[in-house]
Amino acid sequence: MIQQVDIIIKNGTILTMDTQNAILENGFLCLRGDSIFHIGVGDPASFKAAKIIDARGGLILPGLVNGHTHAAMSLFRGLADDLPLQVWLNNYIFPVESRMDAEFVYTGTLLAIAEMIMSGTTTFCDMYLFEEEVAKAARKAGVRCLVGEVLYDFPSPNYGPVEKGLEYTESLIQKWQNHPIVSIAVEPHSLFTCSPELLIASNELALKHNVPLIIHVAETLNEIAEIKEKYAKTPVEHLDSLGLIGPHLIADHCVHLEESDIETMAAYGVKVIHNPESNMKLASGIAPVPEMLARGVTMGLGTDGCASNNNLDLFAEMDMAAKLHKVHTMDPTVVDALSVLRMATIEGAKALGFEEITGSLEVGKRADAIVIDIHKPHLTPMYNATSHLVYAASGSDVRHSIINGQLVMEDRKLLTLDLAEIIARAREKSVQVRSWLA
Amino acid sequence: MIQQVDIIIKNGTILTMDTQNAILENGFLCLRGDSIFHIGVGDPASFKAAKIIDARGGLILPGLVNGHTHAAMSLFRGLADDLPLQVWLNNYIFPVESRMDAEFVYTGTLLAIAEMIMSGTTTFCDMYLFEEEVAKAARKAGVRCLVGEVLYDFPSPNYGPVEKGLEYTESLIQKWQNHPIVSIAVEPHSLFTCSPELLIASNELALKHNVPLIIHVAETLNEIAEIKEKYAKTPVEHLDSLGLIGPHLIADHCVHLEESDIETMAAYGVKVIHNPESNMKLASGIAPVPEMLARGVTMGLGTDGCASNNNLDLFAEMDMAAKLHKVHTMDPTVVDALSVLRMATIEGAKALGFEEITGSLEVGKRADAIVIDIHKPHLTPMYNATSHLVYAASGSDVRHSIINGQLVMEDRKLLTLDLAEIIARAREKSVQVRSWLA
Repeated sequence: MIQQVDIIIKNGTILTMDTQNAILENGFLCLRGDSIFHIGVGDPASFKAAKIIDARGGLILPGLVNGHTHAAMSLFRGLADDLPLQVWLNNYIFPVESRMDAEFVYTGTLLAIAEMIMSGTTTFCDMYLFEEEVAKAARKAGVRCLVGEVLYDFPSPNYGPVEKGLEYTESLIQKWQNHPIVSIAVEPHSLFTCSPELLIASNELALKHNVPLIIHVAETLNEIAEIKEKYAKTPVEHLDSLGLIGPHLIADHCVHLEESDIETMAAYGVKVIHNPESNMKLASGIAPVPEMLARGVTMGLGTDGCASNNNLDLFAEMDMAAKLHKVHTMDPTVVDALSVLRMATIEGAKALGFEEITGSLEVGKRADAIVIDIHKPHLTPMYNATSHLVYAASGSDVRHSIINGQLVMEDRKLLTLDLAEIIARAREKSVQVRSWLA
Repeated sequence: MIQQVDIIIKNGTILTMDTQNAILENGFLCLRGDSIFHIGVGDPASFKAAKIIDARGGLILPGLVNGHTHAAMSLFRGLADDLPLQVWLNNYIFPVESRMDAEFVYTGTLLAIAEMIMSGTTTFCDMYLFEEEVAKAARKAGVRCLVGEVLYDFPSPNYGPVEKGLEYTESLIQKWQNHPIVSIAVEPHSLFTCSPELLIASNELALKHNVPLIIHVAETLNEIAEIKEKYAKTPVEHLDSLGLIGPHLIADHCVHLEESDIETMAAYGVKVIHNPESNMKLASGIAPVPEMLARGVTMGLGTDGCASNNNLDLFAEMDMAAKLHKVHTMDPTVVDALSVLRMATIEGAKALGFEEITGSLEVGKRADAIVIDIHKPHLTPMYNATSHLVYAASGSDVRHSIINGQLVMEDRKLLTLDLAEIIARAREKSVQVRSWLA
């Protein structure tokens, strides 16, 4: 019996990223509706579909998960580099952010999403201002996301006075409930920009709606010093004392940790997003990734925003993660290619609470898959697909992308977005940014 | 009067990388024969050419200089990763290298050159076996190079007994004398694989023919320990005691240096090639790049071979170099984008002794230029071209490449090489490699 499906991807090496990290040579993937219907090997003769994608011997893997970004900061890409953190923040980032509006964030987020899809990301986690716009941009593009309005102890150009932040967040949660690809989180900015009261209230809101609580944690030595001075605690101890530690907590960065902090995080199932390129470029420090992996902390990978990277390419991030910790520990065996590829796929999905939905290619999961073209000199020859993805590939090697069963990029052409228009609008916004700083 | 030239590249932002780092918006470049004939701004109305390349608002810059590689190791890409150095060398690299022949090196070098041209490199410096094949491959591809046979205290699968190595090198020097794009160097492997006698004889040969002397220096802590034990000296002191220190010496890696070593190198004009990705992946260590820059040491950038990187993309190498030293020193201002771009262009050219020929776009220099396509989301918007090249671009953004006045890549299509055939042959060789290790 021939079974009808919607899309077949055939003639590729499938990296499932399942619990066995199974790799299927000459494999095929059958997608029906939003989900993976069948995974097989050889000729998909017992299936037919209106759309057949020939992977041409390339690699088929789960779409990548960008665990932490500020998407609309794509409009600040290259605006200011190689500067001391306070100059960068006070002379560039804060002044332009204070002038932003909803349309600015929508435009910048579409630009970021175009870049993310074109470099293999199918799920991203965002923290920024005007997050309703981020949700709308993601819906338009058809990209999976977990987003939340940044909350802090200052008035916001979006929701206004501090006390409106949680209200705004709750309205987002209600509005986007049960959306197939957009989910909402509660996102207080950090321990040094949020009062204990705001942190506690944020946590209560997250628990009330059973959504993740996302926060920057222990990113810089300045933060460590400030929290120590104010509360006589490490950031993780401070979170713990406020009752925020738990499996719903996603802690971004975690660069400067005590061993006891890692123990706490491992014991209570706190999720961590590692952002090596941002931590390097801003000279924040080197996160204890081998130690966290050894303790079994669930860890995803993030690019952070474009002002501190300056791209959203998770392939570059994987390469950086694998290499940075080797030289830092002077041990070439740590943070191996498979660990890093897992961080960018299934572990990242786990970190965001999406492990039932995405991050691996398994029957019944949502169809989030990318196809890598290997007919390029830098991917030749191929002894080991995992090694190639981490150490040799770049985002531009992604040829096709499917999210939630929808083909969003084919032969590097975006199907849900008008790339020329997005680029034109982004350039207009950059003229505005220059004028703000003039 | 309308002047006839051979190629005009117009409608781009020209990063000259000259002593002023001049950037010309809406610039054009006129090439005649092998050289740059004119550089201008606006419409090139007073010139005509059979070939006009429209940069479409993109970036025009000197072709990149890969200061250190082992090109044919492209055939070992991904063969073995995440291993202790001795396992990697003894169980994988040495066994396969002992079986290599001339055709293997020719095939692997063509693959590497295809990758290098497609990622913006127009000049490379090679150290490997069967270097006559490397020279032939470079000549065929039309890529500029400085190459030399690796010399050490063991018999070679190429030239046979140790004493034949210098003879073979001298025959290379004579054969390729005055070649427009291929130059030869004398290349003893390292201080721990070459006797003092071989090092001294190598240096004499280099000085006799006025060619560079190239050697791996202070790459690993093992090397430091071994040289200290044998000679009670640092590697640089050992080189100095043998009379090898001078402006003709190109020292690859230089990871572990004393301050006095840096002083010696600066005082005598020794050139250094920095290979951050290889040093990270093999956990060799972090070279004191800010210190060397501060002392005025001429420093280029290299990818090293594909077995320790695993690609030849100098854009990734620039990104890594800029970020690694920031986090290592905890100072976001060190090794800024311009310094790194200079290392990959004019400083790299200086390091190889090619500063009169290549590395910057200036009238009278050879025409080695690349064009970057900026109509991509990850290069949008553009506030700062230098920042984009270092922090956002990847090799796949290079659209056209001209070397020595010859168009070698147009619209990402290689014009001097048959890419499909190169890939097919490289895959055949990888089957052979697997059989050697079986």
